[in-house]
Amino acid sequence: MKVGIIGLGLIGGSMAIDLKRRGFADEVLGVEAEPVNASAAEKIGLVDRVVSLDECVAECDVTVLAVPVGAAVKMLPQVLDMYAAGPAAEFADKVVIDVCSTKEHLTRAVKYHPVRRQYVATHPMAGTEYSGPWAAMPGLFDGHACIICDSEESSPKAVQTVEKLYDALNMRTIYMNSSNHDVHTAYVSHISHVTSFALALTVLDKERDEKHIFDLASGGFSSTVRLAKSSPDMWTPILTQNRDNVLHVMDTYIEKMNAFRQAIADADEEAIRTLIEDANRIRRIIR
Amino acid sequence: MKVGIIGLGLIGGSMAIDLKRRGFADEVLGVEAEPVNASAAEKIGLVDRVVSLDECVAECDVTVLAVPVGAAVKMLPQVLDMYAAGPAAEFADKVVIDVCSTKEHLTRAVKYHPVRRQYVATHPMAGTEYSGPWAAMPGLFDGHACIICDSEESSPKAVQTVEKLYDALNMRTIYMNSSNHDVHTAYVSHISHVTSFALALTVLDKERDEKHIFDLASGGFSSTVRLAKSSPDMWTPILTQNRDNVLHVMDTYIEKMNAFRQAIADADEEAIRTLIEDANRIRRIIR
Repeated sequence: MKVGIIGLGLIGGSMAIDLKRRGFADEVLGVEAEPVNASAAEKIGLVDRVVSLDECVAECDVTVLAVPVGAAVKMLPQVLDMYAAGPAAEFADKVVIDVCSTKEHLTRAVKYHPVRRQYVATHPMAGTEYSGPWAAMPGLFDGHACIICDSEESSPKAVQTVEKLYDALNMRTIYMNSSNHDVHTAYVSHISHVTSFALALTVLDKERDEKHIFDLASGGFSSTVRLAKSSPDMWTPILTQNRDNVLHVMDTYIEKMNAFRQAIADADEEAIRTLIEDANRIRRIIR
Repeated sequence: MKVGIIGLGLIGGSMAIDLKRRGFADEVLGVEAEPVNASAAEKIGLVDRVVSLDECVAECDVTVLAVPVGAAVKMLPQVLDMYAAGPAAEFADKVVIDVCSTKEHLTRAVKYHPVRRQYVATHPMAGTEYSGPWAAMPGLFDGHACIICDSEESSPKAVQTVEKLYDALNMRTIYMNSSNHDVHTAYVSHISHVTSFALALTVLDKERDEKHIFDLASGGFSSTVRLAKSSPDMWTPILTQNRDNVLHVMDTYIEKMNAFRQAIADADEEAIRTLIEDANRIRRIIR
């Protein structure tokens, strides 16, 4: 199996490492628009060769779009166009997947594409707040969930190939449609990023004496604000593309903050305690 | 040196372990109002003996108030009263400290106490989201900061004893007044807890199908929501006692959230990107 990775950052690079190491891929090709990242990825040895997009799509059995979702929306139809234009004997069994955090825009962009069935929409839910080829690491995906969206729109063979790929990454697969995916990720991922960004902005804004933040920042603050280090290249398009769901969750969140604010302003210990006890129920879900 | 710990939970219990292990204390006595916790603390071996508050204060060179700040505000004057009432030869060199997250209420409560100088206000900035004697662990404080407040109000000898105590816990000490302490902790600790509580409430409220939260919760969500498991016994009085500072930070935070909301609602990619880039500056402060 030959695998091509478009975008050799944290996700693409980490996939490249484990797919090769664990024998899923005999050869891994990479495509990377940013020259510094491309040469780093080759030097680190993330991929066997850095090639052009055309070469990658033509040579590889599986192509992985591991670029921010704004770029992925443009590239996905291009890749499918190349599949459709090539000789069927060579191109009909090729598969392209994306690994983006939002799905509706992507799936809508190729809904009526003649070779839509060669595309599988996937979202491996793993990552760190770091980016670029230097952030890539083995084992990044182990034990995490991977969502496969609208699998009935893909050919069963393509889905099977992709399931094997995520098996090799030690991920458990979950199936849902794009629309549900985008609602769920707004709740369990996108809102967390927004709250971290807002927390960082709050503290940076008010605490001019940064020395004190550094001195005082306990583990609690660090873990709550960690996601605020996340890349704007990745998160700007996610928040734009999943706008309606994210706004909906943010509105609920702001309501909860205001309820807390009111209870504290009233010094209403009973109300504060009840809010905290209700929040504690998260223990049932998160270890 | 004999050390008495009032409140054998996460903080008190962890102190007991390391102060004994590392030779700062020859004997550690414990006071614990909750019978289940008291017997657990004795069985686990956190302390040498569980005794009454009176015995503890009379016997120990250093008494540590490791109870929620609401209880500490009541107990601190009682302990100082006992110091003042006892024979000077025995009681004049004894020291009492608290380890609470808010300081102004506490220091105000004993500002004019005749033996105020035997009290040192301290805040070891370490912890986990768990509580009770079972949560106690060795090494909890290693490498973290401990704030000593209003040290000029305490006798130099008392401060010296307390510095040695925190030395034994491998903490670095920082000095500031109570009022600044409460402002700073509102920014780097209290607001993080409120945002986590609000996040947990949001997700629990909307995501009725909890199975999906569990499946989808990535590392990012877990770390952002972790503090929502924190105890209402501890956090209700903190948020009440540090009300003005916390409200001030919350107002800034809600402003930032609204700015984000507006940028997303407008699908203004430039504004979203700028907000994220500004938030990224937290990298300079948090590793």
